[in-house]
Amino acid sequence: MNKICIIGLGLLGGSIGKECISKNLAKQVVGFGRKYESLKKAKQLGLVHEISESFEDLKQADLIIIATPVKQYSSIFKKINPYLSTTTLITDVGSTKKNVLKDASHLLNEHYQKFIGSHPIAGSEKHGPDAAQLGLFKNKNIIITPHEKNTNEDIDFIINFWNSLEGISLIMDAMKHDEIFSTVSHLPHALAMIFMSMLNNKDNKDELLRFAASGFRDFTRIAASSPEMWRDIFIDNKEACLKDLNEFKQQIEKFESIITNEDDLEQYLQHASILRSNWNE
Amino acid sequence: MNKICIIGLGLLGGSIGKECISKNLAKQVVGFGRKYESLKKAKQLGLVHEISESFEDLKQADLIIIATPVKQYSSIFKKINPYLSTTTLITDVGSTKKNVLKDASHLLNEHYQKFIGSHPIAGSEKHGPDAAQLGLFKNKNIIITPHEKNTNEDIDFIINFWNSLEGISLIMDAMKHDEIFSTVSHLPHALAMIFMSMLNNKDNKDELLRFAASGFRDFTRIAASSPEMWRDIFIDNKEACLKDLNEFKQQIEKFESIITNEDDLEQYLQHASILRSNWNE
Repeated sequence: MNKICIIGLGLLGGSIGKECISKNLAKQVVGFGRKYESLKKAKQLGLVHEISESFEDLKQADLIIIATPVKQYSSIFKKINPYLSTTTLITDVGSTKKNVLKDASHLLNEHYQKFIGSHPIAGSEKHGPDAAQLGLFKNKNIIITPHEKNTNEDIDFIINFWNSLEGISLIMDAMKHDEIFSTVSHLPHALAMIFMSMLNNKDNKDELLRFAASGFRDFTRIAASSPEMWRDIFIDNKEACLKDLNEFKQQIEKFESIITNEDDLEQYLQHASILRSNWNE
Repeated sequence: MNKICIIGLGLLGGSIGKECISKNLAKQVVGFGRKYESLKKAKQLGLVHEISESFEDLKQADLIIIATPVKQYSSIFKKINPYLSTTTLITDVGSTKKNVLKDASHLLNEHYQKFIGSHPIAGSEKHGPDAAQLGLFKNKNIIITPHEKNTNEDIDFIINFWNSLEGISLIMDAMKHDEIFSTVSHLPHALAMIFMSMLNNKDNKDELLRFAASGFRDFTRIAASSPEMWRDIFIDNKEACLKDLNEFKQQIEKFESIITNEDDLEQYLQHASILRSNWNE
């Protein structure tokens, strides 16, 4: 490629830039963002070749990757539209897909056919350009959610792009994607964040935190994730998240009844323990 | 010491034995347990000098450490009572303390004054003698919950014992202990186990687990913990656990309302994120 443009240079956008440069995937890797300080830092860290605050510099891009919190997409779609060429492909890294596709279809006009959503299942509670790293996508699933207007050629291009970053590309329906990740990712994030919020409201929180140990450490690690990114995920995937939260409350009630009656509790815990022990990342 | 006896040679009991031998804390470290196979393995692994299936061999012990799931204590208290000398100190490693003290006061008769409860805040989701390791207690808090009949001399002995295993001994009231650990330890364990149980009931659980990633991995690690040990903890600390589970359900409802109304969600997540980021183990 001649030119890859990355909008948003946090953990994911920054890591993509670093990989593209390291693997020599394009002559020019240009980073875009809202905050000049972050852009400058990203350039200093070698995450991109060039930085720009003006979407005019998207012109002639072969590939644009949107790597901002998802609720910024609609504004970005509107702003980049004038600078898209008919051959420019657009993808993203957002954790939700259904509404992203809907926004793209409304706001990208004829360029919608060149938009193919992606979600790399890679990340960390760390965020910002400082957290960017080589190898972030290695052997990680990358979910690609094409729509009916995409060509096979363009889909293959996106698949190959992620595979060249050492990811494992997989095709999935956007709606199904959002339901699956609501359950295996958004729900645990919500629970860890709710748990920290509950502690935050306690008068003796300092004492509680003093005695927290390794179980707490791992269980709550994801509660430190980017508040802005997760605000957008919970709002964008609200329907599936509310469904899962409601189901989880019912599951708590079932557990309460099991410990109250001391009824088959060991068997209940055994099933949970075996399922987790047999799981391999 | 001449003789340290450890009842139960899983992760904690086995690790204590290994430390006592490595640090030469007693001439004789004897392991007791229900399953001969486990005892044999513990001896092969060098966790104890000797093994025994008969509590008669507790005679002349300077220190007995009970390291079984807590619901076995009452039966153990009854069985060991005939073999206790007036100088034998007894402690344990259980994650609950209030009912343990109550059982000890009923069942150990005059030896109750020699029972001092302990709870090392050290462990792992791994269990069994194979998981025993040196260094498990290093720089870990060890909560000691003395009662009104204990002498200062005996309390100091137990404090020094744990400090000699490189732990950091702290005195705490048993009731307060159970409330604190219900919130920072038992509740996260319950939530992780409930989450795995919820997945277990799903028709598409294989697909869900296939897309689970590093957030899921850490959030659910503790769900793989010993079902027997945790059955006993949830039952023994039922009152505090039910209170915390109920509060957590209310916190879910608060979160549901925040995402439904998209109201101050980022601030909510920010508070959780900051509290977790500032926490140091």
